[in-house]
Amino acid sequence: MRDEFAWIASITPKEHRQASLLEGIGDDAALVKGSEEEDQVVCLDTMVEGVHFTTDTMAPFHIGHKALAANISDVAAMGGIPRYYLVSIAVPASWSEEALGEIYKGMDTLAETYKMDLIGGDTVSTKGPLVLSITVIGSVESGKKLLRRNARPGDVVFMTGCAGDAAGGLALLLEHTRNHPFTLTEQALVQAHQLPLPNVEAGRLLAEANVRVALNDISDGVASEATEIAESSGVKLTLVWDKLPKSIALQSYPQEQQEQWLLYGGEDYTLIGTMAQEDFSLIQQKAKDCNLSFIAVGKVEAGAPAVWLERSQQPIEALHKAGYNHFS
Amino acid sequence: MRDEFAWIASITPKEHRQASLLEGIGDDAALVKGSEEEDQVVCLDTMVEGVHFTTDTMAPFHIGHKALAANISDVAAMGGIPRYYLVSIAVPASWSEEALGEIYKGMDTLAETYKMDLIGGDTVSTKGPLVLSITVIGSVESGKKLLRRNARPGDVVFMTGCAGDAAGGLALLLEHTRNHPFTLTEQALVQAHQLPLPNVEAGRLLAEANVRVALNDISDGVASEATEIAESSGVKLTLVWDKLPKSIALQSYPQEQQEQWLLYGGEDYTLIGTMAQEDFSLIQQKAKDCNLSFIAVGKVEAGAPAVWLERSQQPIEALHKAGYNHFS
Repeated sequence: MRDEFAWIASITPKEHRQASLLEGIGDDAALVKGSEEEDQVVCLDTMVEGVHFTTDTMAPFHIGHKALAANISDVAAMGGIPRYYLVSIAVPASWSEEALGEIYKGMDTLAETYKMDLIGGDTVSTKGPLVLSITVIGSVESGKKLLRRNARPGDVVFMTGCAGDAAGGLALLLEHTRNHPFTLTEQALVQAHQLPLPNVEAGRLLAEANVRVALNDISDGVASEATEIAESSGVKLTLVWDKLPKSIALQSYPQEQQEQWLLYGGEDYTLIGTMAQEDFSLIQQKAKDCNLSFIAVGKVEAGAPAVWLERSQQPIEALHKAGYNHFS
Repeated sequence: MRDEFAWIASITPKEHRQASLLEGIGDDAALVKGSEEEDQVVCLDTMVEGVHFTTDTMAPFHIGHKALAANISDVAAMGGIPRYYLVSIAVPASWSEEALGEIYKGMDTLAETYKMDLIGGDTVSTKGPLVLSITVIGSVESGKKLLRRNARPGDVVFMTGCAGDAAGGLALLLEHTRNHPFTLTEQALVQAHQLPLPNVEAGRLLAEANVRVALNDISDGVASEATEIAESSGVKLTLVWDKLPKSIALQSYPQEQQEQWLLYGGEDYTLIGTMAQEDFSLIQQKAKDCNLSFIAVGKVEAGAPAVWLERSQQPIEALHKAGYNHFS
């Protein structure tokens, strides 16, 4: 495939057929009219052995956990509560039933945290690598649209947690495999890759706050996700390197390496978004009460849709929408 | 995998965590509480190249059509209206973007019939065969449960159309490939395999009729689907061979061949179910008004859960739950 974005554009319907469809393809998840009080949030994510993971980097438990986490993260990026999931798994004969059971245990352990129910699925055989696809259905207060296109000039850009750790963990796992005796610092990065935690509570705080919010989850690196907000909203985002939240583990690496992982790594599943300055102060106060963090990392201005990075004592630099293209 | 049914049992949750979950794993689709008026019907189905189809038997357009049809059929078997779908596709490099586009065209053409919207998905690469997984979300009047476990002694067993044609078509395609110049009779069977049509209207008539109905779609052969009803309901079903609806194309084959395809073939996507005799007369009248067919094919009695077949001038025979086990 030449270009993933062009492909998605080519299959995206030009119009809605169902009156109850509020938001179709184009954001982290679709929004569908539910009851008077609630809309439904629906998303799907697929992981392929040899493309998104290998058994050298991930135990079966991790694979299940992470595949569900990626989907829950999409619901979180819409401010939603995850409720149900369905699992499609195509399994090669080389996988034992026990290993397969571990994948389900990885999903169920995370699902239990959110009281989610497994409500359907299909288990089929394949002669190729394992393919795991999960559909998650959640809900959000009706009328709430925490979409990428909501950013406005004057907004603060914020993040709800660190980024870059998962990419660092992947680099370590690719170099040493998951059975390597990692140091404590390295273990922190490896765990960020294998057992990422979606930021549902942060998304919920935003949905309940009744303020305009642009929101995206960091599945493809900060540069790519920020660019999606800039392009969807038609605004210019400037991120400040010194403000971007970095774990202590990440900070133990050279700055160039930190930048590579944080800006272009991905699979962190924290949230990045924008909102008005006055709303942000209020949100930060509320967040403190529930032990959540909302960190200001930059600003939104009128201008050509793009993302810029400010480093101390260096000229401002344009970031590119690299992210991880599974076809390149 | 030793046994698909044992595997499904092992991953089926023992309890519901969400109060809004009405029916989880165990029927054609899950039922979730929606608005005051409507519940939601959710299902997922996966097709793998080399297991469920090959490019010798199915053009890309057929693959898309059939994968969506299989899911819509599960919604039909719950009496539901299909509304939305999400598509996960893992594609090997050998597939051209054009062929991939044809898969989507096959889905969209069928989706248009039902005014369904494509609301999400994921397109990823794989080094193995193509894996296509579709999730469909539909709706049904709240409180309607057209479940397999609803059969009662004294019920009529009915079908909403012919079965066996799709298996006949598959046999022809496996023998000759899809480029063979088939006779008109053969073409009817081939089309039943490549472009099956789910029986949504028949399911809707049953949901709107306000009667107790046990219902299943014929995806794994009449013997297997009837056995699921017998086992879920704890009743004995007797089917009468002469009453089972057979197409003219199917009838051109020897009876032994007809039986093999009709009873153990699958992928027909017509419906089989049971209801009280007095309700059935009413339904047949209504069906006639809308050009639908409900054909009485047998009876339900108290007894050990099993399915029996009556043929003229032959001893009654027990049918086994063969169906198509993708792991055998």
